[in-house]
Amino acid sequence: MNGKLYAVIMAGGVGSRLWPRSRTGTPKQFLDLLGSRTLLQETVARIEPLIPLPRILVVVSRELAAEVHSQVPGLPDENVLLEPGPRNTAPCIGLAAVVLQQRDPAATMAVFPADHSIAQAAGLRQAIAAADRLARRGYLVTLGVTPDQPHVGYGYIQRGDPIGDDDGLSAYRVRRFAEKPDLATAQQFVESGEYYWNAGIFVWRVDRIRAEIERCLPALHAELDHVGAAWGSTRQSEVLAGAWDRVPRISIDYGVMEKAAQVAVLPVNIGWSDVGNWATLSELAEEDGHGNAVHGQGRHLLLDTSDSYVYTSAGRLVAAVGLAGWIVVDTPDALLICPKDRAQAVKEIVERLKAEKQDQYL
Amino acid sequence: MNGKLYAVIMAGGVGSRLWPRSRTGTPKQFLDLLGSRTLLQETVARIEPLIPLPRILVVVSRELAAEVHSQVPGLPDENVLLEPGPRNTAPCIGLAAVVLQQRDPAATMAVFPADHSIAQAAGLRQAIAAADRLARRGYLVTLGVTPDQPHVGYGYIQRGDPIGDDDGLSAYRVRRFAEKPDLATAQQFVESGEYYWNAGIFVWRVDRIRAEIERCLPALHAELDHVGAAWGSTRQSEVLAGAWDRVPRISIDYGVMEKAAQVAVLPVNIGWSDVGNWATLSELAEEDGHGNAVHGQGRHLLLDTSDSYVYTSAGRLVAAVGLAGWIVVDTPDALLICPKDRAQAVKEIVERLKAEKQDQYL
Repeated sequence: MNGKLYAVIMAGGVGSRLWPRSRTGTPKQFLDLLGSRTLLQETVARIEPLIPLPRILVVVSRELAAEVHSQVPGLPDENVLLEPGPRNTAPCIGLAAVVLQQRDPAATMAVFPADHSIAQAAGLRQAIAAADRLARRGYLVTLGVTPDQPHVGYGYIQRGDPIGDDDGLSAYRVRRFAEKPDLATAQQFVESGEYYWNAGIFVWRVDRIRAEIERCLPALHAELDHVGAAWGSTRQSEVLAGAWDRVPRISIDYGVMEKAAQVAVLPVNIGWSDVGNWATLSELAEEDGHGNAVHGQGRHLLLDTSDSYVYTSAGRLVAAVGLAGWIVVDTPDALLICPKDRAQAVKEIVERLKAEKQDQYL
Repeated sequence: MNGKLYAVIMAGGVGSRLWPRSRTGTPKQFLDLLGSRTLLQETVARIEPLIPLPRILVVVSRELAAEVHSQVPGLPDENVLLEPGPRNTAPCIGLAAVVLQQRDPAATMAVFPADHSIAQAAGLRQAIAAADRLARRGYLVTLGVTPDQPHVGYGYIQRGDPIGDDDGLSAYRVRRFAEKPDLATAQQFVESGEYYWNAGIFVWRVDRIRAEIERCLPALHAELDHVGAAWGSTRQSEVLAGAWDRVPRISIDYGVMEKAAQVAVLPVNIGWSDVGNWATLSELAEEDGHGNAVHGQGRHLLLDTSDSYVYTSAGRLVAAVGLAGWIVVDTPDALLICPKDRAQAVKEIVERLKAEKQDQYL
């Protein structure tokens, strides 16, 4: 399997913005938010025609490992990497790189968040294959989603000079990464035609990312070296746990990509969404003639209701009158009612529940 | 007990406007909608200092009789009259009159709906005592609530000439009963100072109401005579059931009061409400500093929410953002979300559920 392309799916996230469906024990990536399959299952299914299961790794917490095996039967045990705790993306990716490098020193790895939605799976695979070719030339490649609106919830990537390619590939060197902008800045970005959304999907050779981690995050690199030395031995878990006590909590974007050499952006138009909150999700859901999307196993009865998203639970009935632009998420033990344009406030609800130690609802 | 005052509480109603709390099996009068006691219990408690339990009768369906006994312990078995089916108020009141006449031919009876709210219980008792004195002089007395707004959901009573009384009683002969008016008419009614809300609370001698039923509703009278003849015999239930197959479905207001002689209205100002729908109920509920009223055994978390009524169920959490003037009623199996100014639409929801044979939610 020398020099093969691997997938690394990061499934350790515990977001709060899709509460009350997303909970500590079943975060967003494990939920069937947009169809009959979960976001993790969709992530695997999209990439599997290009990268078969034996070359797909999932990084997840110990608590959620059983859920991964249950949702992705056939995934080899050794392909589920157990992170001792959440440390943001740089340590997570570093761990996968260390493990892959031992299996296949010339490997390339494509990194995917487990909880995004991509409508055009064939387009994604085509882009990953192209990115793989760039990666083999030494580039750290990030997919850049062509923006269709001045979204303020995403990070942006500004392109620089084009990168030549025999296949007529339209990739660019990255000029800079930009944090989530304000609306005016986002509008400038979109109008310029030079900016892309940072989808958090990366492709690179494992030796290249390890070298950049060494240069940009030497403390993380040192810990990863310890982990690598103990990997496969009886001390593996112990060394990993110790390293994870010390590694910096930092994102790969901020910690590495912004400073690394030979960074490329590959523009894509593949129907990508981070499914970041209930309003985003409702945009992806199929709507009836009144702009309503109704999901779930329960019943509903909507009078004079439009442009709303309703989730119902088995055995329960949601009856509503006069909703326009609302989100209603009715789970067995908790109900959310929120205007679509206040979807970000769900995060505040979860923080309040944490502060009040209402753990049963988290 | 010759010539005593009795109470007749009509508890057979199965309204739909307080769904999803009010259900076929536990209609409104059996619910603790406004405090720790149910509306039926409040109705009994208000009147009991004036009319002790042995002289309080409750008319109810067979299905709900156990609930009456459970909620009003100490109520004698023979004081619970089982109506074979709902036939509106005239047959219900006629049945009570027949039964009472056999116990006490000179009895007066005060008729109360089981599902109303009256803030000033002492005022009610004072009014009933005064109405009893009028009733003994032969009047059919109806309490008239002094209107504080041009409500279009109530029937109105226009007063005529004052009725003299040694006690300085301010009662009037009734000029006419008016059906639920439109807003302009209601405004004229209120401005005239001559109109009162018909609260559905009546006081009369049993012989007088029976005589008026005979004159105004002879078919009902004939059936009631059959019931009276069989009452206390082994044929009681059978005869009652047969009679109830034939009696007209008609209200006491429309069937008798509008045509009867010697009808009086006694104005009262006792904090009366019919608790007719969720908006009415929310006006009666105690509010926090933001105009929100939260009832129920569950938890709630309200962000930027004002002027709203929220009911929560044990073990469940209601989290809401940005509600202003809404009603949220979260029961174990059904949820209602409705603007206060659309509270009447709840009836339509229930009708839709009936049409769709969703009996589990009725």
